[in-house]
Amino acid sequence: TERLSLIAGPCQMESRDHAFMIAETLVKLCDRLGIGFVYKSSFDKANRSSLSSDRGIGLEKGLAVFAELKKAFGIPVLTDIHSEQQCAVVAEVVDVLQIPAFLSRQTDLLVAAAKTGRAINVKKGQFLAPWDMTNVLDKITHSGNPNVMLCERGASFGYNTLVSDMRSLPIMAETGAPVIFDATHSVQQPGGQGATSGGERRFVETLARAAVAVGVAGVFIETHEDPDMAPCDGPNMLHLRDMPRVLEKLIALDDIAKG
Amino acid sequence: TERLSLIAGPCQMESRDHAFMIAETLVKLCDRLGIGFVYKSSFDKANRSSLSSDRGIGLEKGLAVFAELKKAFGIPVLTDIHSEQQCAVVAEVVDVLQIPAFLSRQTDLLVAAAKTGRAINVKKGQFLAPWDMTNVLDKITHSGNPNVMLCERGASFGYNTLVSDMRSLPIMAETGAPVIFDATHSVQQPGGQGATSGGERRFVETLARAAVAVGVAGVFIETHEDPDMAPCDGPNMLHLRDMPRVLEKLIALDDIAKG
Amino acid sequence: TERLSLIAGPCQMESRDHAFMIAETLVKLCDRLGIGFVYKSSFDKANRSSLSSDRGIGLEKGLAVFAELKKAFGIPVLTDIHSEQQCAVVAEVVDVLQIPAFLSRQTDLLVAAAKTGRAINVKKGQFLAPWDMTNVLDKITHSGNPNVMLCERGASFGYNTLVSDMRSLPIMAETGAPVIFDATHSVQQPGGQGATSGGERRFVETLARAAVAVGVAGVFIETHEDPDMAPCDGPNMLHLRDMPRVLEKLIALDDIAKG
Amino acid sequence: TERLSLIAGPCQMESRDHAFMIAETLVKLCDRLGIGFVYKSSFDKANRSSLSSDRGIGLEKGLAVFAELKKAFGIPVLTDIHSEQQCAVVAEVVDVLQIPAFLSRQTDLLVAAAKTGRAINVKKGQFLAPWDMTNVLDKITHSGNPNVMLCERGASFGYNTLVSDMRSLPIMAETGAPVIFDATHSVQQPGGQGATSGGERRFVETLARAAVAVGVAGVFIETHEDPDMAPCDGPNMLHLRDMPRVLEKLIALDDIAKG
Repeated sequence: TERLSLIAGPCQMESRDHAFMIAETLVKLCDRLGIGFVYKSSFDKANRSSLSSDRGIGLEKGLAVFAELKKAFGIPVLTDIHSEQQCAVVAEVVDVLQIPAFLSRQTDLLVAAAKTGRAINVKKGQFLAPWDMTNVLDKITHSGNPNVMLCERGASFGYNTLVSDMRSLPIMAETGAPVIFDATHSVQQPGGQGATSGGERRFVETLARAAVAVGVAGVFIETHEDPDMAPCDGPNMLHLRDMPRVLEKLIALDDIAKG
Repeated sequence: TERLSLIAGPCQMESRDHAFMIAETLVKLCDRLGIGFVYKSSFDKANRSSLSSDRGIGLEKGLAVFAELKKAFGIPVLTDIHSEQQCAVVAEVVDVLQIPAFLSRQTDLLVAAAKTGRAINVKKGQFLAPWDMTNVLDKITHSGNPNVMLCERGASFGYNTLVSDMRSLPIMAETGAPVIFDATHSVQQPGGQGATSGGERRFVETLARAAVAVGVAGVFIETHEDPDMAPCDGPNMLHLRDMPRVLEKLIALDDIAKG
Repeated sequence: TERLSLIAGPCQMESRDHAFMIAETLVKLCDRLGIGFVYKSSFDKANRSSLSSDRGIGLEKGLAVFAELKKAFGIPVLTDIHSEQQCAVVAEVVDVLQIPAFLSRQTDLLVAAAKTGRAINVKKGQFLAPWDMTNVLDKITHSGNPNVMLCERGASFGYNTLVSDMRSLPIMAETGAPVIFDATHSVQQPGGQGATSGGERRFVETLARAAVAVGVAGVFIETHEDPDMAPCDGPNMLHLRDMPRVLEKLIALDDIAKG
Repeated sequence: TERLSLIAGPCQMESRDHAFMIAETLVKLCDRLGIGFVYKSSFDKANRSSLSSDRGIGLEKGLAVFAELKKAFGIPVLTDIHSEQQCAVVAEVVDVLQIPAFLSRQTDLLVAAAKTGRAINVKKGQFLAPWDMTNVLDKITHSGNPNVMLCERGASFGYNTLVSDMRSLPIMAETGAPVIFDATHSVQQPGGQGATSGGERRFVETLARAAVAVGVAGVFIETHEDPDMAPCDGPNMLHLRDMPRVLEKLIALDDIAKG
């Protein structure tokens, strides 16, 4: 089994300079630690709680920055797509197309993403059981694309709360697809702060440790140099300065888990 | 307070003749009972569990049948839309655009639907608390469309199960929007049968009675003359021959509830 | 089917005079409305959130007051028991022994209660499915006591929240036992206020209406002349002055439901 | 921080010989691995799903065997108690009194157990939030006994299912009490097989790994040489022959987690 990979970056693409700063920090860190790295950022936040929430840099500018990041650092990049129309355009640049959890049952989006031939990371819907992801996976692979990751990001547990069922990791792994644990959105408190979603950053490491000890192909962690000022997901992003310590622990656990 | 209205029809538009048969039966029934009626059917099932599931008659044919139904019976019609592109086209014919539960947080879809000026029925996401619908409602009304209904259709409760929290009805009514209770999808067992969703038809009347006694503007009930043979939602559609008995009971309860 | 009965009274027995005041008010009300009435009160609150919470008047004094109430008003009385030892003693006076929800799986308590020959009201555990109550019921009936009621009082739904699944009412009714809906504890927010449990009184009528429309043998409603000052369950007890209005509505719904 | 301890043994005490066989195996294993060990077994299963389920060897015989085990192996023993009356008697022999999850809010039981002066292991109720355990803990410590462990064993998640929220471990640890993870009952499917509870043994290791990586004082694992033939909890007990492999992995994870 291969070593743990990291999917990380700021929730939202804020600017070219900001993207470069974060990417450089993470590239150096992952090089030092000897783990794979995929840079993640969103160019558009299409399902914000409220209409007045900031939605990001937009498709065109976002793709240009992704292209520059790939060239500058030689890294694969990941972003989430929200409509069939976006798939082909985004796939010209982006290496991994991510299906948002709310959209994990939208057949046309899954098929359009599949047909780009790019790798697909599907977030498990908060309303789905882990075994339901078999159907989701089949929609993509039966469209001719075997390159799919399945991503746990919490299940609905009462109102405004998610719970991470660690059993979902081996259950989804039985499909043969690599399983990713999204430690950022798993600690989200959806809708829990009125017009924005809340979260509990202090549990990012808790849940990431648990998932890695169970055994996953990768962890997904959003990070920011000043999360409390970030335009989205602030309460659940990890501080960039905490990444080295957290990752070192995760890699040590991964070595044991896969040993 | 106005009397209970009915939103009903077969889950999927199967053919012109089938649509006319069901519509005629329901129009006569609602006329006799003295309640408002909106005909519901889907031209495309965009989030089926599996790729191999039947998806329906398609947009163009579907709109033509809706136009004929409106002309023949003088009734408003409702259908669900799944992308921004569909909104304007569908709104040329259809009176009520319905936002599927999985898509209830997709800002662009909500705004595009709002801008058609048509009435909007938003299903509450299985992953949302009733108070979270305030933000959803605001996305539509702040786009200039005050004509919105909020629809309860069950909340995630463990895996492959939904629960109907009757408290959500007065909570959503506090927004001022008419509240609809979807008794069909509330008894769904999402993903509970492998490649299709299951359901428990016997609880449609149970939950509809409960909701009406609490107080709602309307009930949403999918119905079919042979539900076990229907192309979708068979396990949770009510048999057409049971509609008169169930509706008579619901109207009597509604009279007490609003009396 | 018989008309709805009422199980009601203050959460805790506070004093002889208080018990008489509430009982007299409720007896007169139920006489006027023509419904059966069982007086409910607890002599000991054995599972309060915190050690410092008031626990009530005690067994000996409580039984004396119950005996007086029975003699004065000719009504059956109900109280909850918490240990095998209490069963025989309490059964000398009390007509209906109630098994608390947390204790609904304790075999020895169920058997000891059954062996008194008194009627038993078993609250469904917050951790049980409605079909799990078949085993609970069997523990009592197989001990020679067929006189059992099953009582819905909410299921765990995330943390500090209960949800009332109205499907549980017909499911439990399939056992043949009369089904009671406890509208007071169903709106409890267990542990939701730190060292005491919270609740939302405004939903007592909401949930009671829903349950009655579905069809139940009785409703359980705790009531107090000044609930916000009551020693327990204040946030979810109904104000005594609201009982007539709520009950009139419930009876009208019951007539339709069973018509 | 101290190394991980193990609480283990067969669900039910079956016979003196069986107890000795299991204890000897586990004592040797824990000696070899250098971890603390507490022998666990129940002399009475007081909350079985059904009246016809086997309830065990009984109090008197059970205590005699525990006394022999302590003498023979020099190990502490743990058992669960179900009534105030049992506390003092059991405490004469048994080192750790365990409060069952269903009884975790029963004040009299908690106080009676506390007053024995023995160590107390309280299982968190399936209906409680982790922060609710502060009140439970206070009931014991305010009765003069500071020697309390808090034990996670799953939270209700829909019907007949438990979910292990790994966030509960650090939340409960904030009280200062040692936190134990019960990997056996966390994989239980309560009531899920009709008259007995089901379970998924294959997830015992999954959840134990997760909990240890987060950081716990000990793990609780029921084990049997032939679990499918065991009188209780068969579907979720670990096979005795798998204990060495699983424990070695857990200890390696624990070293990293606490490193």
